[in-house]
Amino acid sequence: MPQHINVAMVGHGFMGAAHSQAFRVAPRFFDLPLTPVMSTLVGRNASATTAAAEKWGWEKTANDWHDVVNDPDIGLIDISSPGSTHVEIAVAALEAGKHVLCEKPLANTVEEAETMAAAAAAAAERGVYAMVGFSYRRVPALTFAKQLVAEGRLGTIRQVRAQYLQDWLVDEDGPMTWRLDKAKAGSGALGDIGAHAIDAVQFITGQMLDDVSGLLHTFVTERPLLDESVAQTSLGGAASTERGQVTVDDLALFTAKLSGGAIGSFEATRFATGRKNAFRIEIAGSLGALSFDLERENELEFYDATAPATELGFKRILVTEPEHPYFAAWWPTGHTIGYEHAFSHQLVDLLTSIDARTQPTPSFEDGLQVQRVLDAVDRSSEAGSAWTTTRATATANGETR
Amino acid sequence: MPQHINVAMVGHGFMGAAHSQAFRVAPRFFDLPLTPVMSTLVGRNASATTAAAEKWGWEKTANDWHDVVNDPDIGLIDISSPGSTHVEIAVAALEAGKHVLCEKPLANTVEEAETMAAAAAAAAERGVYAMVGFSYRRVPALTFAKQLVAEGRLGTIRQVRAQYLQDWLVDEDGPMTWRLDKAKAGSGALGDIGAHAIDAVQFITGQMLDDVSGLLHTFVTERPLLDESVAQTSLGGAASTERGQVTVDDLALFTAKLSGGAIGSFEATRFATGRKNAFRIEIAGSLGALSFDLERENELEFYDATAPATELGFKRILVTEPEHPYFAAWWPTGHTIGYEHAFSHQLVDLLTSIDARTQPTPSFEDGLQVQRVLDAVDRSSEAGSAWTTTRATATANGETR
Amino acid sequence: MPQHINVAMVGHGFMGAAHSQAFRVAPRFFDLPLTPVMSTLVGRNASATTAAAEKWGWEKTANDWHDVVNDPDIGLIDISSPGSTHVEIAVAALEAGKHVLCEKPLANTVEEAETMAAAAAAAAERGVYAMVGFSYRRVPALTFAKQLVAEGRLGTIRQVRAQYLQDWLVDEDGPMTWRLDKAKAGSGALGDIGAHAIDAVQFITGQMLDDVSGLLHTFVTERPLLDESVAQTSLGGAASTERGQVTVDDLALFTAKLSGGAIGSFEATRFATGRKNAFRIEIAGSLGALSFDLERENELEFYDATAPATELGFKRILVTEPEHPYFAAWWPTGHTIGYEHAFSHQLVDLLTSIDARTQPTPSFEDGLQVQRVLDAVDRSSEAGSAWTTTRATATANGETR
Amino acid sequence: MPQHINVAMVGHGFMGAAHSQAFRVAPRFFDLPLTPVMSTLVGRNASATTAAAEKWGWEKTANDWHDVVNDPDIGLIDISSPGSTHVEIAVAALEAGKHVLCEKPLANTVEEAETMAAAAAAAAERGVYAMVGFSYRRVPALTFAKQLVAEGRLGTIRQVRAQYLQDWLVDEDGPMTWRLDKAKAGSGALGDIGAHAIDAVQFITGQMLDDVSGLLHTFVTERPLLDESVAQTSLGGAASTERGQVTVDDLALFTAKLSGGAIGSFEATRFATGRKNAFRIEIAGSLGALSFDLERENELEFYDATAPATELGFKRILVTEPEHPYFAAWWPTGHTIGYEHAFSHQLVDLLTSIDARTQPTPSFEDGLQVQRVLDAVDRSSEAGSAWTTTRATATANGETR
Repeated sequence: MPQHINVAMVGHGFMGAAHSQAFRVAPRFFDLPLTPVMSTLVGRNASATTAAAEKWGWEKTANDWHDVVNDPDIGLIDISSPGSTHVEIAVAALEAGKHVLCEKPLANTVEEAETMAAAAAAAAERGVYAMVGFSYRRVPALTFAKQLVAEGRLGTIRQVRAQYLQDWLVDEDGPMTWRLDKAKAGSGALGDIGAHAIDAVQFITGQMLDDVSGLLHTFVTERPLLDESVAQTSLGGAASTERGQVTVDDLALFTAKLSGGAIGSFEATRFATGRKNAFRIEIAGSLGALSFDLERENELEFYDATAPATELGFKRILVTEPEHPYFAAWWPTGHTIGYEHAFSHQLVDLLTSIDARTQPTPSFEDGLQVQRVLDAVDRSSEAGSAWTTTRATATANGETR
Repeated sequence: MPQHINVAMVGHGFMGAAHSQAFRVAPRFFDLPLTPVMSTLVGRNASATTAAAEKWGWEKTANDWHDVVNDPDIGLIDISSPGSTHVEIAVAALEAGKHVLCEKPLANTVEEAETMAAAAAAAAERGVYAMVGFSYRRVPALTFAKQLVAEGRLGTIRQVRAQYLQDWLVDEDGPMTWRLDKAKAGSGALGDIGAHAIDAVQFITGQMLDDVSGLLHTFVTERPLLDESVAQTSLGGAASTERGQVTVDDLALFTAKLSGGAIGSFEATRFATGRKNAFRIEIAGSLGALSFDLERENELEFYDATAPATELGFKRILVTEPEHPYFAAWWPTGHTIGYEHAFSHQLVDLLTSIDARTQPTPSFEDGLQVQRVLDAVDRSSEAGSAWTTTRATATANGETR
Repeated sequence: MPQHINVAMVGHGFMGAAHSQAFRVAPRFFDLPLTPVMSTLVGRNASATTAAAEKWGWEKTANDWHDVVNDPDIGLIDISSPGSTHVEIAVAALEAGKHVLCEKPLANTVEEAETMAAAAAAAAERGVYAMVGFSYRRVPALTFAKQLVAEGRLGTIRQVRAQYLQDWLVDEDGPMTWRLDKAKAGSGALGDIGAHAIDAVQFITGQMLDDVSGLLHTFVTERPLLDESVAQTSLGGAASTERGQVTVDDLALFTAKLSGGAIGSFEATRFATGRKNAFRIEIAGSLGALSFDLERENELEFYDATAPATELGFKRILVTEPEHPYFAAWWPTGHTIGYEHAFSHQLVDLLTSIDARTQPTPSFEDGLQVQRVLDAVDRSSEAGSAWTTTRATATANGETR
Repeated sequence: MPQHINVAMVGHGFMGAAHSQAFRVAPRFFDLPLTPVMSTLVGRNASATTAAAEKWGWEKTANDWHDVVNDPDIGLIDISSPGSTHVEIAVAALEAGKHVLCEKPLANTVEEAETMAAAAAAAAERGVYAMVGFSYRRVPALTFAKQLVAEGRLGTIRQVRAQYLQDWLVDEDGPMTWRLDKAKAGSGALGDIGAHAIDAVQFITGQMLDDVSGLLHTFVTERPLLDESVAQTSLGGAASTERGQVTVDDLALFTAKLSGGAIGSFEATRFATGRKNAFRIEIAGSLGALSFDLERENELEFYDATAPATELGFKRILVTEPEHPYFAAWWPTGHTIGYEHAFSHQLVDLLTSIDARTQPTPSFEDGLQVQRVLDAVDRSSEAGSAWTTTRATATANGETR
């Protein structure tokens, strides 16, 4: 008989909806050692929070995250609010003995991420665990990709090509949102979707991005300010007549040298006209290759270079079979899943780790590593695409950077 | 403030899981006029039913469907049990004033379907409604396909090609299940998946299959009996050493003349090696064409023959945008949905119709029409593929057949 | 040092152009035992024939095919004229000791084809050989498909799906051409492109189509007559104001029982809006499956059902490698070939057989077999899609039909 | 009545074969103002040259390129020999009044290319023309892509992604060839296939690559020396036991700022396991986007962002219709062409320009521009991926670099 764990979630935007769906659905398909209870939804705007809680099925609401940090009944705090809020909430929650699931990117700066990783390391010693929400690790095709690599089916990995392509900013008259404001979002395409590309590549290959040379570019530098009087949809909104400055990147391009000798080419963009959510990964090794596109997330293409000469080719594997990661819990052979299911998988793995008193992955340390790469890309771009290490380096005052 | 409607569901196999997910999820994403309450799960095996109810979140259980038909608190009965049980339950439920959602195919025979359609027609006059669960009508790509046809974008429809391809019987040593027993399943590939092809084509084109010439074929006529002592998975099971007779079709191939002058080619098979759930539809008209494959259910290919000569081609539309049917309720642009979501859409439309006191579609009459086509294909195959009408015809004793 | 063989070609339409290209190109890439010399082009219209000969590089012209049959210098006669002319020319040529390459379909009737097959059999005993031009057998992907089947990689073949889809008649106001006149063309889509589907399936599977149930349908029964005063392009032409009767099928749909137990579904159409030259073949067996589309003729998809459960999928093989049939003669790895190259391959195989004094394939007997299937489909359609044997059957006067 | 132009070709490797095919075939399908005569094949090895001339149909041979430069009967010299030989032959040929077609890349250094461009400019004033053989400009899909861009269908171009992916060096034990020796080949993947990517992007977009930041990388730095005693195939060869140093790049990755404000991402690699000849180009603009892959060279995907919101998607255009560039000369609707056909198209355009006494494109100046980009990428890589201009810059001694 599984125990229950009371959950509080901070934030109720797009990610809040996706996480709520996972809390609701995962226990119905997976045998969980801990059953999550959707206890408290936290948001600053009381009426909006109440409406969201009702829509998504949270038992009660709070308007100050300190309330749930201080609530002895809460066992897990899910941080789905903007990046600038992560560090404060996460550190307080961990110190209060709450397990933490924090949306990616972990933070808006390396310094914040370091603080969070330190807090997570300290908490882990007390059996309190933190996980960062790089949910795409739990897309079955990518989990399976990692397995193939780990089994050596690709041999020595030499090349990686990762592109996260969206086009929701193509219209020059699309309005400013918090995602285009560096103060709130930390960065643009780089942190929002490039972070996924970095984490997925490191996860699948087991190699870290050691050095990067990058370029950040903003195609449209001024946009109409958002009309705050109109209800906002998840990624867009209504425009007012005033204009504001876009302070984040529209496009991030970077090359990386990976710790195992591979060379990677990365792109994150919101200007790839016609690509709605095309997260593509290609990996080439001495014995094989992989190709993936999130627009067809139930498929993984695998090339086995050891096949007979006449039978070489990319095999389109429908990753929908009970033998594939996570799929036995869902539908019969050949029946697809969608975007939201990776959040359920993430929750399954988190709760399983918490129950087993083991560190869930990706840890805050993993999130910090991604943050270091994001930061290095940013600094490389500032420095004329000069090669920049992603490793922590000693600074003047003896701390690592 | 929406009212509640208490639901009882009969059956807890694969379809029971899919329907439960819809009852659980749909109210969280759609604004429903009636909120479904997962009240009673009905199954003959008490312990299995209790386990399923707990897993899926039903409040209580019953082991005799008469209990829910007689329960004044129940407003909607969802019939997800095998086809042979449909007629009795549906008629009783409708007579007791319960709305009914009945899985497809509507029944195992035309006679049963006629009885059900008559009961539904009588009930509708009392504001009690019945719907048959051809859920694929609510796959956004297919709903959108119907819209394109209705808007005249394909012109006069001339050719239809519909194939539902699975391969879960390719292994000759795969065991017998109730799905291979004509007494329980009514038919094989024809009724199970061919029924979807028939309904989808009639739905999208607005044309009925008037006459058919068909062939039913069984590749493997004897299979190991199922070892009943081993727990059964959704489509397969463990084999015993005894063998039983396969009494349904493995493959159904038929040609149809449609009411609007189109010619259709249909296939339903469980022997299409490598095709897991490939429900493909191609429609060609004087002004355009469509192509769909359920293995890529978030995509619809549309060919506009009126484009400039240099720009003719099939356009791969990601049917994931807020402007597409049902999608505004889900995720932002480009984020995919999976197999199960069509069941939510079906529920949304059912509850909306019930609330509005209008007939939901597909009605039992629509289900009867599909049943007539299934029956005509069966009779045509018996008659050496002779052309056979699908229309009700007067029989010796004055009834229609 | 290869000997030369003087070639005469009858006809100078689309096929004449394709064959000319083969005579010109094949000797430059393949080591041929006999070098073809483009000696005489035969056409009834003197000026058009002269123009074509000059354009394509034929040494001289003739306006009566008897001239080349009687020319002692000619070794090979290539019959690329309409089907109604095949029998007379081929029989005369073979009797005159000329090797013959005859375009498909072999003839317009079974009787003609029988006459031709008999003449070919008699000639073969004298070392004079005949081949029918089902050139698609020599598309490397299809030749390779046959190899995979022959090696048992598909196991027992159970299902075949062959569709030849074109759309050049979609426009109702497109004019009549000889291809729409049964007297000249023999049949419509059935004989023109359906014949390719029949031959390819028989070639790849090694199974014959024994019995068929078919439907021929004409969507547009009247069309503007061709304005003979305007030069005609290969498939179309300019319309006059008068209208003529279309006497051939626009669409042929048929089901077949194959000699090895497989069931086949066939379609040939000129009304598949958006499909320009989509010749698709899918074959499913107990151990594997194949999928091909001529619109991507350098690719073959192969599914190996014996792969591990997690690695099942259709492998997209680029059939462009030196290990693939015919490809070593062309370009380096990964460089594609086009439509015309199969004609070179056909010529290579024909000349190799002639030199080796062995029967080239497909023989006229093979062509006759296809003709019997075409005829059986036609008769089945006339007989309400009744199952019709394709085998020669005794007729009243003791001859076979 | 077209005049003749006698052609001499220097070199008889892979490119020699492709060019020979164009000289042989183009006049048979296109109405050329000048008919090329395959007069003299030039190669240093007499027997190999004679064999190639016989195989490909050249009238005679020479073993010193000066012979054809000095031959008054020769009108056009086609330089298909390795890059290191281009400058000397081209300059001499142009000075001798011969038109020149020179394979790409134009030269091995910017200096050589400058010399050649100057010679070409001088010759053009005398009505003697030079063209560099970036044949992919004449792949109909890419020619058509340029047309779409020129018509404004993409709006303001913002992003370009060009990858030329091959995998023929994946095997570490594959032998050294001249293509891996910087002294002969100039560079590796960068110059061989990256040059195509640069030219195609500049051609299609009309924007130049002004500044680049690049990385060249060699994965396998030592390989077995080629056994010269064994006949060499086009790209590979037999290995001896000694090893040599690979002095060129296996992989080139670079980012570019284009003259019209677009940002480009480029890759050229011979280590893309599973990609045989995948030259992919994606272009995104404010109004539309394009996608191309040479492995499917008869297709161009076009996204029209101005379509209705429900009908957005990439349209797969079969670029095989008479309305598409060059296609009216080949086969009827839907019939594909292959790799070699672009060489015919190149020849058609060259001869048409020569006859019209206009400068053919791409000119040597265009080739020089590509060379400057290649050089800038090389220098950027040497300088830690620092941004490097591709423009000619004044050097110490007053010359441009």
